[in-house]
Amino acid sequence: MTDPSVEDWWTTSIIRMEPGVIEFRDRPIEDLIGTVSFPQMIWLMLRGDLPTPGQARLLEAALVASVDHGPQAPSIAIARMAVTCGVGLNNAMASAVNVLGDVHGGAGEQLVELFGRIDRAGGPAAVPEALKAHRAEHGKFVPGFGHRFHKDGDPRAPRLLGLVDDLAAQGEISGRFAAIARAIEAELARGKPRGVPMNIDGATAVIFAELGFAAPLARGIFCLSRSVGILAHAWEQSQQGGRNKGPMPPNYLWTYGGAPGA
Amino acid sequence: MTDPSVEDWWTTSIIRMEPGVIEFRDRPIEDLIGTVSFPQMIWLMLRGDLPTPGQARLLEAALVASVDHGPQAPSIAIARMAVTCGVGLNNAMASAVNVLGDVHGGAGEQLVELFGRIDRAGGPAAVPEALKAHRAEHGKFVPGFGHRFHKDGDPRAPRLLGLVDDLAAQGEISGRFAAIARAIEAELARGKPRGVPMNIDGATAVIFAELGFAAPLARGIFCLSRSVGILAHAWEQSQQGGRNKGPMPPNYLWTYGGAPGA
Amino acid sequence: MTDPSVEDWWTTSIIRMEPGVIEFRDRPIEDLIGTVSFPQMIWLMLRGDLPTPGQARLLEAALVASVDHGPQAPSIAIARMAVTCGVGLNNAMASAVNVLGDVHGGAGEQLVELFGRIDRAGGPAAVPEALKAHRAEHGKFVPGFGHRFHKDGDPRAPRLLGLVDDLAAQGEISGRFAAIARAIEAELARGKPRGVPMNIDGATAVIFAELGFAAPLARGIFCLSRSVGILAHAWEQSQQGGRNKGPMPPNYLWTYGGAPGA
Amino acid sequence: MTDPSVEDWWTTSIIRMEPGVIEFRDRPIEDLIGTVSFPQMIWLMLRGDLPTPGQARLLEAALVASVDHGPQAPSIAIARMAVTCGVGLNNAMASAVNVLGDVHGGAGEQLVELFGRIDRAGGPAAVPEALKAHRAEHGKFVPGFGHRFHKDGDPRAPRLLGLVDDLAAQGEISGRFAAIARAIEAELARGKPRGVPMNIDGATAVIFAELGFAAPLARGIFCLSRSVGILAHAWEQSQQGGRNKGPMPPNYLWTYGGAPGA
Repeated sequence: MTDPSVEDWWTTSIIRMEPGVIEFRDRPIEDLIGTVSFPQMIWLMLRGDLPTPGQARLLEAALVASVDHGPQAPSIAIARMAVTCGVGLNNAMASAVNVLGDVHGGAGEQLVELFGRIDRAGGPAAVPEALKAHRAEHGKFVPGFGHRFHKDGDPRAPRLLGLVDDLAAQGEISGRFAAIARAIEAELARGKPRGVPMNIDGATAVIFAELGFAAPLARGIFCLSRSVGILAHAWEQSQQGGRNKGPMPPNYLWTYGGAPGA
Repeated sequence: MTDPSVEDWWTTSIIRMEPGVIEFRDRPIEDLIGTVSFPQMIWLMLRGDLPTPGQARLLEAALVASVDHGPQAPSIAIARMAVTCGVGLNNAMASAVNVLGDVHGGAGEQLVELFGRIDRAGGPAAVPEALKAHRAEHGKFVPGFGHRFHKDGDPRAPRLLGLVDDLAAQGEISGRFAAIARAIEAELARGKPRGVPMNIDGATAVIFAELGFAAPLARGIFCLSRSVGILAHAWEQSQQGGRNKGPMPPNYLWTYGGAPGA
Repeated sequence: MTDPSVEDWWTTSIIRMEPGVIEFRDRPIEDLIGTVSFPQMIWLMLRGDLPTPGQARLLEAALVASVDHGPQAPSIAIARMAVTCGVGLNNAMASAVNVLGDVHGGAGEQLVELFGRIDRAGGPAAVPEALKAHRAEHGKFVPGFGHRFHKDGDPRAPRLLGLVDDLAAQGEISGRFAAIARAIEAELARGKPRGVPMNIDGATAVIFAELGFAAPLARGIFCLSRSVGILAHAWEQSQQGGRNKGPMPPNYLWTYGGAPGA
Repeated sequence: MTDPSVEDWWTTSIIRMEPGVIEFRDRPIEDLIGTVSFPQMIWLMLRGDLPTPGQARLLEAALVASVDHGPQAPSIAIARMAVTCGVGLNNAMASAVNVLGDVHGGAGEQLVELFGRIDRAGGPAAVPEALKAHRAEHGKFVPGFGHRFHKDGDPRAPRLLGLVDDLAAQGEISGRFAAIARAIEAELARGKPRGVPMNIDGATAVIFAELGFAAPLARGIFCLSRSVGILAHAWEQSQQGGRNKGPMPPNYLWTYGGAPGA
């Protein structure tokens, strides 16, 4: 391998710059400011083109829906603790976004992949087989369905699904990933009194799949959305004060588990 | 001090939850999804109420304008390097957002504070005195004015200022922080052939001040905006491949500075 | 300013490399491995020379003493929560080390600075005046003295001070910063039944000052030490399992503070 | 599942605390300070017991050997860039340690796992078969062998292997993982003029396997070691100054790759 030249070391198709010129995907920034919405700009940066208004509204709904799930979520608790340790809002946001990993932030990514496999295998009819394979590899839990707190249903999911149905009725998206998700929901409910209803991760995964986003971007866009809640809680905590705030009141320490092997 | 009870340890006015219920600032999430824009949701989370459409458009313009300034920006370079080290998009975003500190992400915050001081001292007429005081404390450099790359002017600033003027003409904002910023620009240009024109940080600081955001939120909102570029570049780099990509091509190492005291 | 050449962009005196050659501060790595202790290597990297055995032992004691203060410390809680979110040990360490900021990790740095000011003002006799100035600027709280949990004394401090006294008796360090710290302790105890005894931050700050470390390195070395506890707790949590573990048991949510202005 | 009580939510066997009492693995902290070395303390925290002096020396050698590989390493470059963005040393360390992921920091972990599989399959004789299986799953590249910069050999590896051999000769470790690593090296060299000699990751993986560390701790301990170099470079950069330092000199931007699909 010959070493690359300095000029070619960093290459991007996202941005072009000259003194006085900033273009994103060949569009001058001054034509974008005041013209495109923030979700349209997010799409342009990630995809290289602009979405239709309907596509943008659907992406916007997903961005709005996932901003926050309260101080019991590890990401939010971390942001609040961080500011009491004497770091800036950017640092608190970083410590928090960092934990949106495979478990906390990965359900959407895994589900977009699963939806894609089911779609390529023929759609809803392939669901029972696909779930069997998924569980053989990953265990009983199917990401995106059921919620340990909202046991009778996540209030965000039906609203998001309704917007998906509207756009599919207008022919802007196919609606086939919504059908797959509903087939999964039906399969999971079979023989159970209460069912395992789709949650926010399931509904946003439907949106990302319908809009054609690559699976890892389901996680990436969730990070953009949750960053809003992270910032809001970090800011609120900074107004409340507190120094080195631990997870629980200081009169509760922890259980000492004994020496290993004891 | 008596120790707080477990129930009171975490307190927030941002979100209220019961099984099946999620409310932000007393508004059910299902009423927000599909109804408010993402910038309106950001405002609601940070401020507790909803902005007017004009205010939301101005915030949206600031969010769109700051997404990215290319791989020479440390935040963007860090995101690109990070993904080649084998971490997830959330981790790459965290390492990058983390460096939006006092120098890389703090200009807007410092400027909103300076604008506020000048406003309380009487407005544009107080600029020469305020700049003298600012420089005595912080040195020659005034954040938000001049750009080492866009020497004849940052293309984002005039477009943003135009939107500010439009909204001020409609009486939705006062326009007095735009006047202060222009007075600073004029003062900095006195006796100089080329001037030191307002840059993106200056123009967005005007917007944040006009909209009434607390100074630290200028940094926080910048983090939300720049996260988009950080994600886009991390994603593009992951598609390009590369392993442990250093800052420069591997045939350039670094200059050995000699032992200390040598 | 002329732009620097590519060759000069990164310059370091810490490491020199050629194919087959790695030298730190002019010492080949193969001469260091198996010869210097880890604390000696830390000193070499930060200071450019090797410490005496006595200096190395004192640095080692500070490194050992600060590794951990349990899951109530925000840094440790964050590390434990992070691994349950599905990120790697390196990511959990990053989110946790990140919060060792001005409040959680900055006491040593602030105290090394205060010790330096008192030393330059004449030593222990200057303490009452210096404390008055410190409190006028920063409030009642003096970092490094008193502990909200170990109210009758931090068990780590006297042991560390004893090691300082031993090395001072051998003439390897001056002992004058220990004298200053004890004068502060005496001043804080005046007229109080229980006193405000030196804590771990106070005792390690004495060590860093006696050893001649720049104040910001007090924080940096604390980060190296606390990283050990952070790693140990992250690892233990990964063995315990758990998914998206919040700060408190899930039956405790948080107190809703009401809408702003309500 | 019944919800756990507040008291049991956090459980640890690492640390026990009461006012005035701090014990690690049942040993009072004041008995450890000044008595155990920093590597012994690291072992105690991660393993629950104290190593023999020989084991401690071997761990210490691994900790010393991996501290730094210069500003071309992404972790080091990130730390240096971070401080020029106006964040603290703890934040710079966090952004850098965060990228010690599967590619930058994971070779040791993968290799300890591979060594274990070969050991359970019978040792050196199982190497050819195991390498075939490894390559079928992961591709041609075997972590821990070969170096793109030190093409004729990494100077750290033979020195570390020598220390392993010494301790094996004294019967404190078995030496069987060193034998496996050398069998891999021989297998990789077959029919090649230059061979693919063991590098630092290979040699430290031998040490971690010989000492009985779980594979993920190979990464964790590497993070502790590299944190030293990260801190040293961040500190040196802070002394050099610089604001928003990008990866390359500012007269080199990047190559614009054209619009997607162009």
